[in-house]
Amino acid sequence: MKAMIKVTLKNGVLDPQGKAIMGSLNSLGFEGYDNVRQGKYFELDIDADNKAAAQAKVKDMCEKLLANTVIENYEIEIAG
Amino acid sequence: MKAMIKVTLKNGVLDPQGKAIMGSLNSLGFEGYDNVRQGKYFELDIDADNKAAAQAKVKDMCEKLLANTVIENYEIEIAG
Repeated sequence: MKAMIKVTLKNGVLDPQGKAIMGSLNSLGFEGYDNVRQGKYFELDIDADNKAAAQAKVKDMCEKLLANTVIENYEIEIAG
Repeated sequence: MKAMIKVTLKNGVLDPQGKAIMGSLNSLGFEGYDNVRQGKYFELDIDADNKAAAQAKVKDMCEKLLANTVIENYEIEIAG
């Protein structure tokens, strides 16, 4: 099975990378956008008996390594 | 409207960050996973008349700034 994980900063946590991207988009002449936030994205293949088991395993990986749960949220999607 | 963008390395491009994460997962005792790849994730609010216009605008942002199309793919999702 394939797991896709999005890790994003929690609301209220400052995002200097996002601000820098907004500055660059502005320099390039883009308009009509706001609230740019940068996060991380992971993909991995996982062996598990079923989707629930895969989800639980990946949740454990997120809690222990992939996300800093003090300032970040994570979202897991398991595909076929 | 809200745009969500995933930027991932193309197949065949080496991913040292992914390899490092695999090493760390291994040290933590995880098993049964493979092919860890790290990418980037962006969220932004965008003003546009319709989803197609928003998609076109964000595609332009990806081509010019958010993704390095020589080595990266991007995937855009427009919500609400």
